[in-house]
This record gives sequence, C-alpha cells and structure tokens, in this order.
Amino acid sequence: MSKGALVIVGANAAGMGAASKLRRLDSKREIIVFEKGRHASYAACGLPYVIEGKIDEAEQLIVRSPEVFREKQRIGLHLGHEVTAIDARGKRVRVNEPGNGTGFWQSYTDLLIATGASPYIPDMEGSRAPGVFALASLQSGKDIEEYIDRHSPGTAVVAGGGYIGLEMAEALIGRNIGVSLIDMAPQLMTTMDEEMAGIIADYMTGEGVKLYFGEKLKGIAANDHGRVRGIATPKRSIGAELLILGLGMRPNSKLAKEAGIELGAGGAIRVNNLLQTSVPHIWAAGDCTETVHLLSGEKVYMPLGTTAAKHGMVAGININGGSEAFAGVLGTAITKFRSLEVARTGFSERQAKERRIECKTSVVDSFTSAAYYPGSGKITVKLVAEKDSGRLLGGQIVGMPGSGKRIDAVVAAIHSGMTARDLVFLDLSYAPPFSQVWDPVQIAARQLI
Amino acid sequence: MSKGALVIVGANAAGMGAASKLRRLDSKREIIVFEKGRHASYAACGLPYVIEGKIDEAEQLIVRSPEVFREKQRIGLHLGHEVTAIDARGKRVRVNEPGNGTGFWQSYTDLLIATGASPYIPDMEGSRAPGVFALASLQSGKDIEEYIDRHSPGTAVVAGGGYIGLEMAEALIGRNIGVSLIDMAPQLMTTMDEEMAGIIADYMTGEGVKLYFGEKLKGIAANDHGRVRGIATPKRSIGAELLILGLGMRPNSKLAKEAGIELGAGGAIRVNNLLQTSVPHIWAAGDCTETVHLLSGEKVYMPLGTTAAKHGMVAGININGGSEAFAGVLGTAITKFRSLEVARTGFSERQAKERRIECKTSVVDSFTSAAYYPGSGKITVKLVAEKDSGRLLGGQIVGMPGSGKRIDAVVAAIHSGMTARDLVFLDLSYAPPFSQVWDPVQIAARQLI
Repeated sequence: MSKGALVIVGANAAGMGAASKLRRLDSKREIIVFEKGRHASYAACGLPYVIEGKIDEAEQLIVRSPEVFREKQRIGLHLGHEVTAIDARGKRVRVNEPGNGTGFWQSYTDLLIATGASPYIPDMEGSRAPGVFALASLQSGKDIEEYIDRHSPGTAVVAGGGYIGLEMAEALIGRNIGVSLIDMAPQLMTTMDEEMAGIIADYMTGEGVKLYFGEKLKGIAANDHGRVRGIATPKRSIGAELLILGLGMRPNSKLAKEAGIELGAGGAIRVNNLLQTSVPHIWAAGDCTETVHLLSGEKVYMPLGTTAAKHGMVAGININGGSEAFAGVLGTAITKFRSLEVARTGFSERQAKERRIECKTSVVDSFTSAAYYPGSGKITVKLVAEKDSGRLLGGQIVGMPGSGKRIDAVVAAIHSGMTARDLVFLDLSYAPPFSQVWDPVQIAARQLI
Repeated sequence: MSKGALVIVGANAAGMGAASKLRRLDSKREIIVFEKGRHASYAACGLPYVIEGKIDEAEQLIVRSPEVFREKQRIGLHLGHEVTAIDARGKRVRVNEPGNGTGFWQSYTDLLIATGASPYIPDMEGSRAPGVFALASLQSGKDIEEYIDRHSPGTAVVAGGGYIGLEMAEALIGRNIGVSLIDMAPQLMTTMDEEMAGIIADYMTGEGVKLYFGEKLKGIAANDHGRVRGIATPKRSIGAELLILGLGMRPNSKLAKEAGIELGAGGAIRVNNLLQTSVPHIWAAGDCTETVHLLSGEKVYMPLGTTAAKHGMVAGININGGSEAFAGVLGTAITKFRSLEVARTGFSERQAKERRIECKTSVVDSFTSAAYYPGSGKITVKLVAEKDSGRLLGGQIVGMPGSGKRIDAVVAAIHSGMTARDLVFLDLSYAPPFSQVWDPVQIAARQLI
C-alpha cells in the first residue's frame, strides 16, 4: 500500500534532511520538495567565511546538489517554487511556479513545513538601500561579496553583537574594511554573562573593531546614488559604506499561521516532540519551529543548524510511521572572532536569575594546554550550578584555539543531570599538548564545590 | 586538638596534591613529605616535549617549587630522602637522609604512600648500558637530552608502541634522529582496536618511522665504549645509538608490600574508594595504587596523571576526616604524533569481547570542521556500544588537529550511562570552523542506531 506523497516546503537542513531520511526508510514513497529560492541544501552558517574570502565560492557551501537529490535519491526537488497557501482540509498546497502566473495545487498525504527563518529587518527608511544587507540565503552572501568587490567599502557598520555580528565583523576586518559594531544591549552576546562578554569585547577592540553598546540603530543615510553612507544611533552618526544587519532571526511561519496552524514561542510554529503541528498530517521542522529548553521545559525559539539537522532526521522517521521524540535543546552555541573562541550552553547566570533559580557560579582562567607547552593560550570558563543541589545549569567558555569545543563535555554533563562534583570526577582526557592535568572545565567545577 | 603528623612518601601529583588539599582544609596540621628524588611536583608527561626541544628546560615542568611548598604552604618537603620501611604497628617510617648513613625514624598519625610508578626495565644484558633509557623522573628526561646533545645519535630504537613510545618517536624524529619502533604486539597502542591503530601506523610510517610489530626486544648490543649500538629481535638486528624503553609502568609498591599492606591488580597497592589501604591509618594514592574500571567494576592498574591528581584531592579530604569517594576510571587517554591526534576511552571492541559483552560498533570518517572550511582535516571515530541496550561502552578517535579532545563528550556520555541514541540527540556545539553540523562523534553514534 502506498503511503501517498510527502510534500515538503523548504529545501534546507530540516527539509532535505527529512526527505533523505524518509527515502532511506522507504524507497518508494513520493517525495516532492518546493523551495522558493535558487539553492537547496547549503550551509548558511558558512556565509561569513565566504565573504571573508576564506572560502572561494559560495557554491562550496552546497552540501548536496539538486541533481543528486533528484537522480540518486529520487526526490522531486523544485527550486524557484513558492508555496503560497495550505488548504489543510483539502490536503493540498498552492504553488507558484516560475513562468506560470496562475500556479497549481499539489496534493499531499503528509506535509512538512521547513520554511526556515529570515533576518529581522527594521521598518526604517533606507533599510533596503543598496549596501544594506542581512545574512539570509546563499544568494544574500553572494550579494554582499559582490557589493564589496564592486564598491570596495572602506568602512562598515555591523548592527547587532550576536553570533552573526561577530562573524561578519571578522569577515569584514579580513577584507580590510574598518568595522564599527553597535548593539542596543549593554554588551556583546547577550546569551553570555557580562564578564565573559567583556573578554570578547576587549579582544575585538584590540583587533580594531569599534564597539558601541546601548546604542540602537535609529536611522540609515544614503548618498546621491542611493547607496548607504552611514547610520545614526541616539548618540552619534557613524559613516559606513556598508551596513550589515545582524539583528536576530524571525521564523518564517506566515504560511502556517494563515493555514490556521498554532504558533508558539517567538511566533514560531508550535510542534510536539514528534514534530507534529496542531493540524493533522502537517509537520514542521527546523528554524520555523519553536523548541523546548531541556533545563526548564520552557518553549523557546532558538533557530540553529544543529537542531534543524536533528529535526530533519526525526521528521523523516516519524512521517514514515515511527515515533522518535526530539526532547529539546540546551541553547548550545559556538563561534569565534579571529583567534578567540566563544562557546556557551544551558543557562547563563543572568538567565538562571531571570528564572529565579538560586545558583552559584565560578569563573576561572586557565590554559588551553599545559602552561609550559608551546602555543598554550588563555581560556576562561564560567560554570553555573543550582545552589543547593550543585546540579550544573550552564557553561560559558572564551579563549584561544582549543577552547570552544570543550563546551561539549559540559553539554553532555548537563544533559545527564550531573552536578559540579560529577564533572570534577569525569575521566577527561589529558596530555600536555591538549590540557592541564585538570581540564579547565573541571577547574571551574572544583571551584563550585 | 591536633590531629598529629601526616607523613607522605613521594612528592608528585598525588602526594603534593594531598598535601596542598589538606593544608587548605587544616592550616595547622603538620605535613611532612619525603621524596627520594631530586625534584618535587613536576609534570612527567611533559618530558618527551623537553627532549624534542619544544620546551627549553626540564625545570619548566615543575608545577610548584619546593620553596613555595615549604614557605607559603608550610609543608615539610624533604628531597633526597628515601623511606625504606614502614613500621605500621609503631606508626613510624624509616628514612634515609643524605649524608646520614644511619637514617632516622619519623612518626606519623596518618601515612600516605604516593610512591608512583617506574618504567619496566627487562632483565637483559645491556639494559642499563649508556644510551639505554626509560622515561621516569625529571632527571631521566634531562639525562636523555644530555646524551643526545653529547653523542648526536643518528638512529634510535623505541621499544614499545604505547603512549610513551609514540611521544618519544615524535621527540626523536624532531631531533632529526631516525627512529625504528618495535612492539611485541601485532599493532601500536593495544588499548585501541586494530583498524584505528592501523591509521596511526600508516601516518607514522609516512613520517619516516620504521615500525616492526610482533617483535620483542631480545638483546641489546654495546660498542667498544660500552654504549648501545643496536638491538635484536627474533627476526632482525637494528642498529641504534640510542634505545628508549617504553615497555609500560610498574607500581612502586615494594615499600607497602614489605609493610604487610595488601596489593591488588598489577601488583599495585589495593585501596578502597576512600583511598585507604588494608592497614589502618595508611593511605595510598596515585600511580602506585590500583583503581576501579567504572564500566565493569574490575580492579585495574592504570597509572595516569589525571587519576593521580584526583587521588591527591580525595586523599587530602579524607585524611582530614572527610569521606570523598573516588569511584574509578574509564581508561581515558589522549596523545599525538606530530599532527595526528589519538584519544580513547572506555572499552575497545577487543576489550568488550574479552569480557564477553555482546557489542556493536561503528567506524566513521568525517572532518574536523565543516568540509569546506580551510584547514579541515580527516577524523575517524569508532564507537562501541552494548548490543541490546545500545549503552555506550567506548570511543576511539584518530585524526588531525581538533580531533582528540572530542573524546571528552564521549567520556561524559559513558560516565552517565548514555546510549548511542542519547549521544545523537546531545545539543553539541557547531559552527563551521569547529565541526560539521553533526559532530563526528554523533555521526558515529547515528550509525550505531
């Protein structure tokens, strides 16, 4: 018995992950994917490094080509096709096809919404002027690169001091563009605590980035050609021939909302742990969905490539009749600015306090390898634990190469409910090129107990 | 009320760790440490890098100077003092003092034996000839360095393909000495499975090391000056002006044995999880003790700096009247040969089968960062899990820079009893400079389920 067509809206990590998983589980079922953009299955996280010039061609970010999906996996992948409406009762979607003004209806047995997220663009004069960009699609990365090549901007402003802001600041500095970074928050990286963010700010300042905190983007000025020439905050004007907006992501949930599907945290599509939406036979996965914070059970909106990849796998299994549950996330993230690595997981001290969790914290400076080993660099680790139980709640790491990925041991420890004491006694690896005898995360844990 | 003197035999990680911990907990108690060698508190694991020339002076390995212990911590540290006997009934130890032929008795309230381990030296003609060395004390490292400086050996044999063998091969190659490595086992690193060890062997061969497996050291030949000029195995003779013995470590447990203290695995001192020996008021810690394998509960002998450091802390707490338990180890280890990083934890497939545990395994090749990111290198991960439950039993990693420390997430997963599926769903960190979207350890876990 055929199970009927799975229609997928959106051809990135979650959508194509689900398509591939389902194809491995069921070699026969019809799978149709509509993607409104020009590219499928690319690593958007790599775009800053394309712009920096570390990666020659944006196309290198494409994980799998449309031909492989179509021919090897027999997935009906349609680029440039926008799904404009869902008729949930009729179990069909309305599709706009290139060169076909009227479009068509496509029936489904199961529908997976994997429409991703879009950068927030403030509703402000000039926010769509030439020279103003946000990092979204593969195409947007190519556009920024082309703009830099053509206009050779000497100065840029990056609005927003989150991950994308940091990565874009690195990219632009790498292209010899003077960078000013503004953020309305009083610090960089608001998912980190103040003292950890301060280390990052000091390092970035040392590398020539001008930082302005507590200053919101208020206006964008254009030159005679209509191209950006500067921005204004409530406190100052800053000249800039390029403006990058890194103001956060918003879920592409309009299509779902209009179909009567329930939304949740941050306006993202609400799903249960099987990735079912509120409407039968309609699933959602990836950056367009909300997720659950494992520490608190709160519904949160945290669009991340890793979650999208896991969602794709889970959706593929469940659409095939399985019952694989996606429990949630810890909000783990990692990035770097030049040589400085930054990673975090779980609750920061601020996040714990906002939730009225009584906690204790430790911040320790240590070395990435044995202090006497050549190239050993500074690493700072902050841990947050529940006050009475000692249960680990979060970790933050800032330091030289070799620092960031240490967060993964903390991630595993928090996932399994370990206390600071448990972390101290983990049989973590040690040799002089890799660590101190006590790994820095254990030194921080020792200080907690 | 004074608790009376703590006497410690041996002044390295375990001994000085215990002394320092106790001093922090009790500012008054008398602490006396006897060390038969010339140095205290040094990182023996760093010796290969001193010999390689990456670290200028062996003294840089000294973690804390005797003066700091004596003056700041008020620990009575006596170098060059050998404890030759324990009178457990009289609660005193016999001490040989430099320049005092007769020695003296020192009373104790508590005694901590932290005598460490010594390299196994085969009972064979020439095994103590000039040019034949084993890596033991700081002094032995200095001696090797001096011998190389003076005699400029062109060729060397390293006997033993474990961690020390690998590290010494790297060190000698780094000094432009041609290295042959022999091992009686059919592979390098017997705590790794064959296919993983094969990757290491291929890499080392590519870097110019000649490897001979299944060949035991049978004889050592000396030249007219009495210095080593070659070795013999059952199959061949190999010329060598330097011979490094990396044939494993033996616990320094003779002192304990002669005092009637019970020994255990590998002839090491038996301790309970509080680090008490079979004799009241006598404790033991570090490389001279046996430990417990957390997966099986077996008593094992696994001398490692990380365990010694933890033992020191635990002994200090418990000698002060605490009851901190040291549960055991997973046999985690990490090392590198040039750019190739090697790490392992838990049971290898062979170790699992030896214990008649039905297991499943996966071996995957992946990349240390996003495949498109510059400098991304190959990484191979092997995971071992219990067949029915899926519970993780072990992990092995071999790969380019950034590979090794990934073992720590596996360590934490095994410690907490996670299954392969649990590992797949860990919210591990990802950004293109650090990882694929699925961390290589998760790709291996996915293949297991």
